[in-house]
Amino acid sequence: MSRKIVVVGAVALGPKVACRVKRTEPDAEVILIDREKFISYGGCGIPYYVSGDVSDSSDLMKTSFHMVRDEYFFTNCKDVKVMTGTEVVDIDRKNKKVKIVADGSREDWLSYDKLVLGTGCRVRNIGISGLDLKNVYGVGKLQDAIDIKAVITAGEVSKAVVVGAGFIGLEMAEALADMWGIETSVIEIADQVMPGFVGKEMARLAMKEMEDNDVSFYLGERVISLEGDGSVKKVVTDKRELEADLVIMAPGVVPNSELAKKAGLAIGPFDAILVNDRLETSDPDIYSGGDCVAIKNLVSGQWGYFPLGSMANRQGRVIGSNITGSNKQFKGAVGSFVVKIFDGCLCGAGLNLDNALKAGFDAVSVQMCQLDRAHFYPDKDLMYLELVVERGSRKVLGIQGYGANGDATVARINAVAAILDKGATVDDISNLEIAYSPPFASAMDVINALGNVADNLLNEQFRPIGSKEFEEYWEKIKKGEAALIDCRAERDARPYVEKYPDFWKSIPQDELRRRINEVPKNKKVVLVCNTGVRSYEAQLNLNELGYEQNVSVQGGVAFLKKYGVDL
Amino acid sequence: MSRKIVVVGAVALGPKVACRVKRTEPDAEVILIDREKFISYGGCGIPYYVSGDVSDSSDLMKTSFHMVRDEYFFTNCKDVKVMTGTEVVDIDRKNKKVKIVADGSREDWLSYDKLVLGTGCRVRNIGISGLDLKNVYGVGKLQDAIDIKAVITAGEVSKAVVVGAGFIGLEMAEALADMWGIETSVIEIADQVMPGFVGKEMARLAMKEMEDNDVSFYLGERVISLEGDGSVKKVVTDKRELEADLVIMAPGVVPNSELAKKAGLAIGPFDAILVNDRLETSDPDIYSGGDCVAIKNLVSGQWGYFPLGSMANRQGRVIGSNITGSNKQFKGAVGSFVVKIFDGCLCGAGLNLDNALKAGFDAVSVQMCQLDRAHFYPDKDLMYLELVVERGSRKVLGIQGYGANGDATVARINAVAAILDKGATVDDISNLEIAYSPPFASAMDVINALGNVADNLLNEQFRPIGSKEFEEYWEKIKKGEAALIDCRAERDARPYVEKYPDFWKSIPQDELRRRINEVPKNKKVVLVCNTGVRSYEAQLNLNELGYEQNVSVQGGVAFLKKYGVDL
Repeated sequence: MSRKIVVVGAVALGPKVACRVKRTEPDAEVILIDREKFISYGGCGIPYYVSGDVSDSSDLMKTSFHMVRDEYFFTNCKDVKVMTGTEVVDIDRKNKKVKIVADGSREDWLSYDKLVLGTGCRVRNIGISGLDLKNVYGVGKLQDAIDIKAVITAGEVSKAVVVGAGFIGLEMAEALADMWGIETSVIEIADQVMPGFVGKEMARLAMKEMEDNDVSFYLGERVISLEGDGSVKKVVTDKRELEADLVIMAPGVVPNSELAKKAGLAIGPFDAILVNDRLETSDPDIYSGGDCVAIKNLVSGQWGYFPLGSMANRQGRVIGSNITGSNKQFKGAVGSFVVKIFDGCLCGAGLNLDNALKAGFDAVSVQMCQLDRAHFYPDKDLMYLELVVERGSRKVLGIQGYGANGDATVARINAVAAILDKGATVDDISNLEIAYSPPFASAMDVINALGNVADNLLNEQFRPIGSKEFEEYWEKIKKGEAALIDCRAERDARPYVEKYPDFWKSIPQDELRRRINEVPKNKKVVLVCNTGVRSYEAQLNLNELGYEQNVSVQGGVAFLKKYGVDL
Repeated sequence: MSRKIVVVGAVALGPKVACRVKRTEPDAEVILIDREKFISYGGCGIPYYVSGDVSDSSDLMKTSFHMVRDEYFFTNCKDVKVMTGTEVVDIDRKNKKVKIVADGSREDWLSYDKLVLGTGCRVRNIGISGLDLKNVYGVGKLQDAIDIKAVITAGEVSKAVVVGAGFIGLEMAEALADMWGIETSVIEIADQVMPGFVGKEMARLAMKEMEDNDVSFYLGERVISLEGDGSVKKVVTDKRELEADLVIMAPGVVPNSELAKKAGLAIGPFDAILVNDRLETSDPDIYSGGDCVAIKNLVSGQWGYFPLGSMANRQGRVIGSNITGSNKQFKGAVGSFVVKIFDGCLCGAGLNLDNALKAGFDAVSVQMCQLDRAHFYPDKDLMYLELVVERGSRKVLGIQGYGANGDATVARINAVAAILDKGATVDDISNLEIAYSPPFASAMDVINALGNVADNLLNEQFRPIGSKEFEEYWEKIKKGEAALIDCRAERDARPYVEKYPDFWKSIPQDELRRRINEVPKNKKVVLVCNTGVRSYEAQLNLNELGYEQNVSVQGGVAFLKKYGVDL
């Protein structure tokens, strides 16, 4: 007799499970249930639909071969039964059946042999008043996207406020400012964008790129209420009021775990459904995956929450395989991410320095920048990278990056991510085998150089400071409490020497040894060059000559400028 | 007392060793010796200098901060002594000294505490006559590049022949044809381009791109002689004569191991110097690395030869560290490579199918193509990938790729390369964590899909044929000995049905079950769609209904067209 597989939730994980089950066990009866009208859409594409990059909302529901993934598609291409507008409100685990409510009223029970919960997540409710005003939207469902775009194209929006500077917040802000020229502000309760994902320096690079593209940021501010008169008119924070005729709520998401909870399934951290490596819940007849489950962070060993369409897709295949007799494992994730920031890209994997310290690691990080391909090749961009490592074990805990060539930048992150769960050390990064040819990489690729810099730091050959720390030194330098030496060629240093004749001192690294008497011995010396290569060399020269009171600015003037230090 | 480190060869490995030693042990005396005039240049940049992408040959000798790496640079920036135009002709290992000949005559002996051999490689001599004719060049030294460009800019070249279709051959052919409009032909003794690196299908995609850009290929031809009258005039092969006023010899390279051999150091396969993981030769006071050594192929476990600037740079750092007291390891390489092919890029890592079979693996490969980012995102390209896996163990042995977006294509190769030496299985590829966002990846990324396809093959859920095999079926189909079913939407199939009404049959996959009586039972059915997704689905449908006599065209019509099948 054919088995009956009931799948709750039909956006990302659910359809993948359903199709995989049918491919492996064609005679299984598979039922895909969703309370919404639209199913199987690329929710991550919503900002690109709002921006206009994706012209039609149905494109987000299409396969790569341009078929809309609707009921016809699932019935005829996949032999999967679809029930939309249908909510699963209860699970009778003992009798293996679920209670459904169709179109808000018609109740029924459906039996199952295996049940899959792909209930996803929803926008976090931050408990402020005014969320029910017109033109206040979350970005969770395809209908939200359609509604937002309709409001914009109707010309109702000249000022927008985005609450939250995580992925969705930044993507939506770019969509609004870039394609529609809407005056866009982002309010973030943390003191940086992408909190929890990148360190302050990388966050600043991304934010500055957005500011340069006319997005305003208000960091460290708490939204108190949304106000208006039917429609939203302003956003009130603990520090100011901002006019707004559109508000996008992107303060993060929380898992939809209520159904599981009600059924007595084990719930883990983040209020998410607990699953094992086979993606079984505490009931072996019920599987779960996607945005409603917690999975292991393979770097920290602790529980993690990674609500990403890619996780849902890959987990869906694992569940579909396991339902039909395989023994596939999904061991967790290292937390790779990427977000497009106008012409740049911010990305990472593993832990950032803050997270690593919080997780109990004796962690330290290095930052650097280098060209993404051979420096003599005509097309090239600087790539900014940060590597988080553990002292002692020399293990790599995470990497974050920012670059103008998104594909090339995220490429380095992906290569490191592949070995983050395999105990990779700094030496593995120094030696990571990046395919080399001048149009695609450097002979000593930026990622290998990053490993080398970390190696130098751990060997105490290198005493770096970052852009943030430089800002503190910069004040001391201006007061004469610390000295600065520019190690570049005289012509590169000249504009700064002319601007700051009293304290911007030029000694090219190649002249340092014979001009050593010009280096002050009684104060800290800050060494700077273009990207940090020559200032490191200069640091070694000074150390050799007994001038150990020095620090080298990692990433050099290139990083300082990108970071926005007022030089 | 300070130690004396003598480094023979000053192109890639040597300078890296010298600088690393000085950074770690500043009081060491380091001497860098080269028989040529130009040192520390990016030899891999030569094709880009010839093409004009790099305008000045000195750019190839510059640091990223635009200083020429000449004697001044090494003396003043690095405190390294440089001896150019000086050849090391003998090693007295017992007394730890080398015999040098400066400027072709002045002999001397130099003592060393540690000696490093970075003697590099040279163009293989294929033993034909005419190699000494004017306008016949290898591409090994910077002087070659300068001479080649001088001949071209002098207007002496209208027809060029490149001997060898490996990296350098293809790069030089592109440089000549693309930037200078020179009528360019490539002669290759093997029956494909990039032999030893990619399989026949991938090779064909790259070759076709070059043919579309006016480069001609003569495969499976042996060059007999070069003929001319002072200057080269023609290239004679075993099949034809080709006019040429410039000939680039790129039949591969061989290691310069003569000096090591003469000194009695152990020599390994490929006639290369044998080194251990610390990059010590059989004499612990002599290190070697770069294009003159053999290192382990970390996939096959056998010896490999990887003459690449990136290897030399990374090995140089390992040697420099080990000379100064570290214990760094260089365990080998998986053989990552990339070559730019006009607007495309051909790349790979590990073993191709042929190499895997030759190395004794029970290997099989799958090919597929998919968009490199979310299919609804406006900018995107098809990426063509081949994964080589071992039956039974399910281990991944290699990956090769071709794509129009080079950065995105090589990114996938690099991510897989990172785990190739760590026993990665097909499941690791299915689950490789690629940072996801629609502008950079698919929710089920192309690399995960590739792993899934391999999984389906190994599970015998999938019976694919490649483009090469399709060509054989195509003849049978035209004769009615096999059937073809196009599983795409009717509108996509229509042009083919109109062109081949007798044998191009359209049954969209979603109609297949109810039109099953239209499928012939008495002959093999070839299922085809756009990229292979629907034909795989159709294959499962047919299997379920008892029509198991079928094969699915991997990569679909997209791959067939790119491959150049005459449809």
